[in-house]
Amino acid sequence: MWSNSIGKAFVVSCFGESHGPVVGVTVDGCPAGLPLKVDDIQRALDLRIPQEKEVVSARREPDVVELLSGVFQDYTTGAPVTLHIRNKDVKSSDYESLKDLVRPGHADYPAKVKYGGFSDYRGGGRLSGRMTAAFVAAGAIAQKLLSTFGVEVLAYTFAIDGAQLENPPSVEAVKKITYENSMRCPDPATAEKMRQLVFSAKADGDSVGGVVECTALNLPVGVGEPLFDAIDSELAKILFGIPAVKGVEFGAGFQATRLKGSENNDQYVIKEGKVVTLTNNSGGVLGGMSTGMPLLLRVAFKPPSSIAKEQNTVNMSQMEEAKLGVKGRHDPCVVPKAVSVVQGMVAIGLVDLMTRGGMIPRVLKS
Amino acid sequence: MWSNSIGKAFVVSCFGESHGPVVGVTVDGCPAGLPLKVDDIQRALDLRIPQEKEVVSARREPDVVELLSGVFQDYTTGAPVTLHIRNKDVKSSDYESLKDLVRPGHADYPAKVKYGGFSDYRGGGRLSGRMTAAFVAAGAIAQKLLSTFGVEVLAYTFAIDGAQLENPPSVEAVKKITYENSMRCPDPATAEKMRQLVFSAKADGDSVGGVVECTALNLPVGVGEPLFDAIDSELAKILFGIPAVKGVEFGAGFQATRLKGSENNDQYVIKEGKVVTLTNNSGGVLGGMSTGMPLLLRVAFKPPSSIAKEQNTVNMSQMEEAKLGVKGRHDPCVVPKAVSVVQGMVAIGLVDLMTRGGMIPRVLKS
Amino acid sequence: MWSNSIGKAFVVSCFGESHGPVVGVTVDGCPAGLPLKVDDIQRALDLRIPQEKEVVSARREPDVVELLSGVFQDYTTGAPVTLHIRNKDVKSSDYESLKDLVRPGHADYPAKVKYGGFSDYRGGGRLSGRMTAAFVAAGAIAQKLLSTFGVEVLAYTFAIDGAQLENPPSVEAVKKITYENSMRCPDPATAEKMRQLVFSAKADGDSVGGVVECTALNLPVGVGEPLFDAIDSELAKILFGIPAVKGVEFGAGFQATRLKGSENNDQYVIKEGKVVTLTNNSGGVLGGMSTGMPLLLRVAFKPPSSIAKEQNTVNMSQMEEAKLGVKGRHDPCVVPKAVSVVQGMVAIGLVDLMTRGGMIPRVLKS
Amino acid sequence: MWSNSIGKAFVVSCFGESHGPVVGVTVDGCPAGLPLKVDDIQRALDLRIPQEKEVVSARREPDVVELLSGVFQDYTTGAPVTLHIRNKDVKSSDYESLKDLVRPGHADYPAKVKYGGFSDYRGGGRLSGRMTAAFVAAGAIAQKLLSTFGVEVLAYTFAIDGAQLENPPSVEAVKKITYENSMRCPDPATAEKMRQLVFSAKADGDSVGGVVECTALNLPVGVGEPLFDAIDSELAKILFGIPAVKGVEFGAGFQATRLKGSENNDQYVIKEGKVVTLTNNSGGVLGGMSTGMPLLLRVAFKPPSSIAKEQNTVNMSQMEEAKLGVKGRHDPCVVPKAVSVVQGMVAIGLVDLMTRGGMIPRVLKS
Repeated sequence: MWSNSIGKAFVVSCFGESHGPVVGVTVDGCPAGLPLKVDDIQRALDLRIPQEKEVVSARREPDVVELLSGVFQDYTTGAPVTLHIRNKDVKSSDYESLKDLVRPGHADYPAKVKYGGFSDYRGGGRLSGRMTAAFVAAGAIAQKLLSTFGVEVLAYTFAIDGAQLENPPSVEAVKKITYENSMRCPDPATAEKMRQLVFSAKADGDSVGGVVECTALNLPVGVGEPLFDAIDSELAKILFGIPAVKGVEFGAGFQATRLKGSENNDQYVIKEGKVVTLTNNSGGVLGGMSTGMPLLLRVAFKPPSSIAKEQNTVNMSQMEEAKLGVKGRHDPCVVPKAVSVVQGMVAIGLVDLMTRGGMIPRVLKS
Repeated sequence: MWSNSIGKAFVVSCFGESHGPVVGVTVDGCPAGLPLKVDDIQRALDLRIPQEKEVVSARREPDVVELLSGVFQDYTTGAPVTLHIRNKDVKSSDYESLKDLVRPGHADYPAKVKYGGFSDYRGGGRLSGRMTAAFVAAGAIAQKLLSTFGVEVLAYTFAIDGAQLENPPSVEAVKKITYENSMRCPDPATAEKMRQLVFSAKADGDSVGGVVECTALNLPVGVGEPLFDAIDSELAKILFGIPAVKGVEFGAGFQATRLKGSENNDQYVIKEGKVVTLTNNSGGVLGGMSTGMPLLLRVAFKPPSSIAKEQNTVNMSQMEEAKLGVKGRHDPCVVPKAVSVVQGMVAIGLVDLMTRGGMIPRVLKS
Repeated sequence: MWSNSIGKAFVVSCFGESHGPVVGVTVDGCPAGLPLKVDDIQRALDLRIPQEKEVVSARREPDVVELLSGVFQDYTTGAPVTLHIRNKDVKSSDYESLKDLVRPGHADYPAKVKYGGFSDYRGGGRLSGRMTAAFVAAGAIAQKLLSTFGVEVLAYTFAIDGAQLENPPSVEAVKKITYENSMRCPDPATAEKMRQLVFSAKADGDSVGGVVECTALNLPVGVGEPLFDAIDSELAKILFGIPAVKGVEFGAGFQATRLKGSENNDQYVIKEGKVVTLTNNSGGVLGGMSTGMPLLLRVAFKPPSSIAKEQNTVNMSQMEEAKLGVKGRHDPCVVPKAVSVVQGMVAIGLVDLMTRGGMIPRVLKS
Repeated sequence: MWSNSIGKAFVVSCFGESHGPVVGVTVDGCPAGLPLKVDDIQRALDLRIPQEKEVVSARREPDVVELLSGVFQDYTTGAPVTLHIRNKDVKSSDYESLKDLVRPGHADYPAKVKYGGFSDYRGGGRLSGRMTAAFVAAGAIAQKLLSTFGVEVLAYTFAIDGAQLENPPSVEAVKKITYENSMRCPDPATAEKMRQLVFSAKADGDSVGGVVECTALNLPVGVGEPLFDAIDSELAKILFGIPAVKGVEFGAGFQATRLKGSENNDQYVIKEGKVVTLTNNSGGVLGGMSTGMPLLLRVAFKPPSSIAKEQNTVNMSQMEEAKLGVKGRHDPCVVPKAVSVVQGMVAIGLVDLMTRGGMIPRVLKS
């Protein structure tokens, strides 16, 4: 009783392995009538991985999308949209030595115990960051759909190691600058500091973590359901599904625990005939529902577990202690790649909740 | 397309309103053969609310559980277990003035927009903290079930406002001290500091937030599924369903973003024939699966939104700005009450995942 | 991994046992703004059981509904609607002798094996026809909701044993006559034949089965989804959930297997500007979707398994063969009671599918 | 809020269109450790379509399976198994004339209304019988899994038009003879009668229907859940998902409505130390649970809707009446093809229920 799907109404199911024939995804619940071409998805995938080769793994996948179903004459039909990406640049031999050694920080150990030796260990198998290519592809469909309702989702790097944005970035900066640098940070100066920290970690055979911030603009009021299908509940669930995530917070988040109620409450006023709040400590969420203010959330990514530095581990087949320096091609920091993943996943979650809430019809007007 | 349930295999569905006849819950998916008496549940409810009346709302509910189904001759039958608690100490008149004014920080505004005026606004209606009595009742069943597998879930107050635990508390202290003070904090000195901060906020007509920490001991390896039905995903979803939660993190959490990979990775050694890690920065979770080390998570609670201090708001029926000081009987801090709620909810989530993973059979041996 | 719920968007979950404190039901997914009073539900329950005492079990429950949640000022709020009915006329002693003997035709044997002796065997426990009171109560809410969209669901007895309707009854006859006789048959002469067959079976210590037919009028085109969430799939699933059902067919059903394509196809014409079919062999279902023609289905009920006549059985605790004549208060035919159950269940299924298909909004206009 | 999946624990989701690039399926919930090669699936597909070209459509697909994920070193890993079949022999031009004309008996009319013109009408698109290739492929995996538990599912043609099996076929005959003739009937003489009826219908430009019977042997007692997740409920839901199905019955089915309770009840005796019944009118199902006796069900298939004979229809774009003789390559009878589809679908449903019931572990012993 387990599943590889997210969502209830807009259901995204992924399949494939890092070193198998494909990484793929099925989107079930997309309304009929959405204009969709393979290029819409290809473009999102092309942005996923920064071009600066020093800051990412040396594995180079062309990531060419093939659209298999659910689209007819460039419009969705309401049937499941399935697409996949063939894996090309696979070096499974790098992983043979890992058959028995469990890498610290990776899922190797619980996977080996849970699956009794049947799991595909090559490149992390099913548990590889490579799966996020599928999330980004599905996220591109979700974002295209949201845009027809005027909703925009924007993610960017908030912090890497000790370097972090000092001030909330403007929407304009986020849109213009984020993808201009390999750190995916809307402030060029901060981006440069981050870059140096990544370089430095890499030089040490080490890795660094960071925080992705994400906002959604123009959400209608009332997205998300009271209690359990809350907008924060559903997004948190999805976001913890991204490899390396260790924390999720909304609005003031953990900082809210140090504020007084009178400081933290977002007071209401009327502005241009609309009810708005003076502050946005809630991150646009009250009682599990969107308030109409910008949705704001942050996601904590741990430093990548694959590092060249030698670590203690255990050889599981001989049950004896061992040493390990992880070979293979790895990222010194996943945060830049994670930006488009967070953006796509939040979009998926929002479409799901808006569909459940009756805000997205079965058939879009042509 | 929305639901008032958590879980897929151990499904907890709540019903009722703060000022309606009852608050209730159905647990569907409990195996047959669990010894269960109404007292097992009553005891958990009795612990939910600290007895020190200065630190909690003046509303006093006896919270008497009635068990309606699913138990025969003091054992569960495998059928749904439904129970409810009658509401007694209801003062709906306190809320008449709130029919049109939306309280800052509460769900009033999105609820009013979403439900077009049909929602029950008395005492927060469906969105009241009162619903958590149902979660605690269901949590008591989950904990009873977990205990038959040797799994123990323990929550306690980690921080209130500026006062926080300096060192990780021992399991013994957690078990012995937590419920001895009204702050539910396993360190008496810290508890006293917290208490003063709560008193002080209350005296100011204000409120304070805090952090609840929760651990689960003796979990088998492999609880939770890779990717989307991950243990962290599912628990985060459930925890954000508790009113006032703004953040959830596992292990080193947001702090992990400041660590190097070589610092954050938990290295493996063999101890007494078992694979263990030297540190537990992962909080017992890797790749969405339990590692066998203690599960460790923290939940951020914002300061309660109902405060006596005057705030700006809007009268929704006249669409004009207004002032509001919230009357009624409210908590200056929800954290102490939240401890048993977090504990219950984590237990519910773990039972659900263990059932899905085939670790809990349909019928317990008698 | 099992559930006591039907539906995905309009979710009906029942709880309780035949000889426990209550039989109850939670309806989760009812939109806000439906006018609903306890009397709306009570009326449906009062019609469930024919008043003629010769044709039904001697157990006499007043079946008084208590509404526990989800309704405020006589309108639904969008929160779960829970209601229950207290069990009063319970004679559990009748069942003590059945603790070890498995009654032929009942679920006793698989229940005993499956639940290892923990199931509540009194009066069938969870598996009693008594549970259908909960279905009828939920069905009353579904029918009230459907009526706001002009959809009407009508069920009636089509056949009992050898007596069956010769001609399709008119809608007027169904509405006027069905509940005038204890057989729930829209043709008085056929009803009288059915009644004699029931009397005769009862006199012999035996029982008879029959067929309930059900139609739904004014359904919009396109209710139900292609392939797996088809209208016929979902209704069949729900209908097989009613105790004693052994077959379900739509339109010409099993008879269609003897027709040629040219006879069975419903040809299209235009009538008053609308596309209609000349015949309705499809029963209003094509490709899993409603066609706009009347939905038409039939449900086969076996003769009740509890009969006074002596039968062979097995004593499970001693594993030896035994004889059994079932005591207790039983129905010689369940078909008359089943009419309102089928009607309620079909209504529940249709509301669920219409909600999933975006045809029922979250909030009804006031 | 709709889905293209069946099952809760063993989830089968299909994608693709009759004239799109592929027909495919994802199986999520298969335990790790099942030996699985692409040939296991290819073999089942090769049997789906009778080789006698007179009795089936002239469309000839090689139906070559490509396995995309979830299998490593010839064993399942516990990850989703996705496979697809490329469509080759596509003549979409046959369908251009059908863009506006709705074919009687097909889903064209409700699909056009529901999807506002966006659905893929070529060859029935998503609603084509071609999709059943995906069901058969998934069914082959399910049957392979069931066989490791000793459970066997066997389907065969019970009736075509007026020709039907006189006596219940022996298991040996079913296994040996069914696939020896193009009718998939375990009795050669009856098969020949059926064949003549199919030939005769084809010669008339017409079509015939029939009944598929299916049995499952060696099922454990207690598969299926009381009430709503009943074995008959779940299988009926799945079976109505097969195109052209109009009725489903278990055991004596509709015939049971003509039996007395004393005739229909299956009485218990002890045979070789096991509890068995003297008859099997229940079809191996009581209270929604398997009894340990053979599961027995029948599925009614209507005659195919595509016939050469001229019929009345409507041109939807001009909203005027029209005449139509369906061109393209069609089956005069779908029953022979349906045999392996029913067999596969029943196997899928049984695996799902056994998994939910805790009867299939997460990892099979190697």
